Amino acid sequence: MAPILCVGALTMDTIFRLDRLPDGPGKVIPLDAVEVAEGMAAAQAASIVRLGEEAALWASAGDDATGDRLVAQISGEGVDCSRVRRVNGARSGFSSIFMDRTGHTMIVPRYDPALMAAPDAAPDLGGIAAVMTDVRWPGAAALALAAARAAGMPAILDADMAAREVLESLLPLATHVVASESAAKLVTGTDSAEAAATSLAAKHDAFAAVTAGAEGCWWSERGEIRHTPAPRIESIDTLAAGDVFHAGFAVGLVEGWEMARIIAFASASAAIKCTRFGGRLGAPTRAEVEAFLAR
Amino acid sequence: MAPILCVGALTMDTIFRLDRLPDGPGKVIPLDAVEVAEGMAAAQAASIVRLGEEAALWASAGDDATGDRLVAQISGEGVDCSRVRRVNGARSGFSSIFMDRTGHTMIVPRYDPALMAAPDAAPDLGGIAAVMTDVRWPGAAALALAAARAAGMPAILDADMAAREVLESLLPLATHVVASESAAKLVTGTDSAEAAATSLAAKHDAFAAVTAGAEGCWWSERGEIRHTPAPRIESIDTLAAGDVFHAGFAVGLVEGWEMARIIAFASASAAIKCTRFGGRLGAPTRAEVEAFLAR
Repeated sequence: MAPILCVGALTMDTIFRLDRLPDGPGKVIPLDAVEVAEGMAAAQAASIVRLGEEAALWASAGDDATGDRLVAQISGEGVDCSRVRRVNGARSGFSSIFMDRTGHTMIVPRYDPALMAAPDAAPDLGGIAAVMTDVRWPGAAALALAAARAAGMPAILDADMAAREVLESLLPLATHVVASESAAKLVTGTDSAEAAATSLAAKHDAFAAVTAGAEGCWWSERGEIRHTPAPRIESIDTLAAGDVFHAGFAVGLVEGWEMARIIAFASASAAIKCTRFGGRLGAPTRAEVEAFLAR
Repeated sequence: MAPILCVGALTMDTIFRLDRLPDGPGKVIPLDAVEVAEGMAAAQAASIVRLGEEAALWASAGDDATGDRLVAQISGEGVDCSRVRRVNGARSGFSSIFMDRTGHTMIVPRYDPALMAAPDAAPDLGGIAAVMTDVRWPGAAALALAAARAAGMPAILDADMAAREVLESLLPLATHVVASESAAKLVTGTDSAEAAATSLAAKHDAFAAVTAGAEGCWWSERGEIRHTPAPRIESIDTLAAGDVFHAGFAVGLVEGWEMARIIAFASASAAIKCTRFGGRLGAPTRAEVEAFLAR
């Protein structure tokens, strides 16, 4: 096995599960609460390890105590954090999230702009099997996607909502685009996930998938559009579900599966996550996904 | 100088300043955000030091990383934290707070019940000048107030909102009750701060003050009720304002001032705090309070 390098966000989320979201000032006692190191790339990397492949993380943290805890927690999941950049004098990213019983969230994230500074150089991809980037650290994502393409390995872009310029700068660099429905519609100017997947694949000569939550996933392979329905589950926490989908996608891709199997595996991984509270802490193991798919 | 022993709460608050509170699911980017070790007793102790007296803290934290940071931050304010109890296997208290520009808050606190267990014995009051307790660790508050009374030193109760049984068990032990308006009304069954102060003082044969925010403070001394207006300020953050008031009260009391001066000093201290974001981080120094009063 060779690790998948995940590039992008790393933040400390505090997630409170509430009976319902507050509708004004006041005090609410939570049903549960967890502090979890995540952010898109970090959640993807940790989920890849649970799904049975190796992962490395390239992300930025401050040189503060929160940064120490971020690295310790993600390393504790088995992710290689040796590439994590600690920025002098910067505060590590953090957020607080109030979530109701059905997964609706109020999110307040705090991110030090100093963490966003573009890196000086692309990472060393020696020994890496594939690169997957999010849209939260665009300078690094561009370098890493370009280097992966040049090295002939998969360059996967998690195209979630971001400024249009960010999406447009990264899309041409990817060999595989897995976009959220809202971002895909924004950047293609289409009004359906299906049309967006078709447009992304054609325009960028790449594999393209568009995830639409409970509506499933539309994906385009060699000019043909396909749809994989989402498993029916009772969702209580969709936080990091997209990251778990991407983790499953990357795992299947580096293992050389057929695309239909990859998408089904990614969909099942994300579906299981949605049934569990705690953001990426709810990511399943490979055995759990296989048992789910065998039902 | 001898330290004032503050007994009760110690929690890690993350406070996000928002343009306005969220009115439903979604993401909100904050104007500012701080992580601050506070909780009533801890905020009082830190504020006492800023106001020029010594303070010690008796509170409970978990044996986790958050507990280390709580103790480090409050110690860093100059508070003697040698009495802080670390509870094996418990999680330190924490909360997330969304605050709008005028100080309205949504608060979600998480407190491990294991931290609440009553202590085995009263603390050693050797070298202590006074005891001040909140209502968040009732078993310890009862022991500490009784021990202070027995030792002939001020036994100050910060009677904030709590279960009625908690308030009723602690009130008879205090030599000085400084209550919030809502708690005072609850426990006396009266409908004004003035009536509540009169009732508290008569029933418990103690000094009693009732704070009513911008309405000022009613206090009862030797059967006579007095009112001290609150300074007019533009309030942006009332979090920990009550704690700063209590800190000012305790400082004046151990320095032997006349009660009118004590209440004016406490009111000015709390007023300054309300003009600054960041919970107890906005507590003023003594020089700031004296300058404010000299205006």
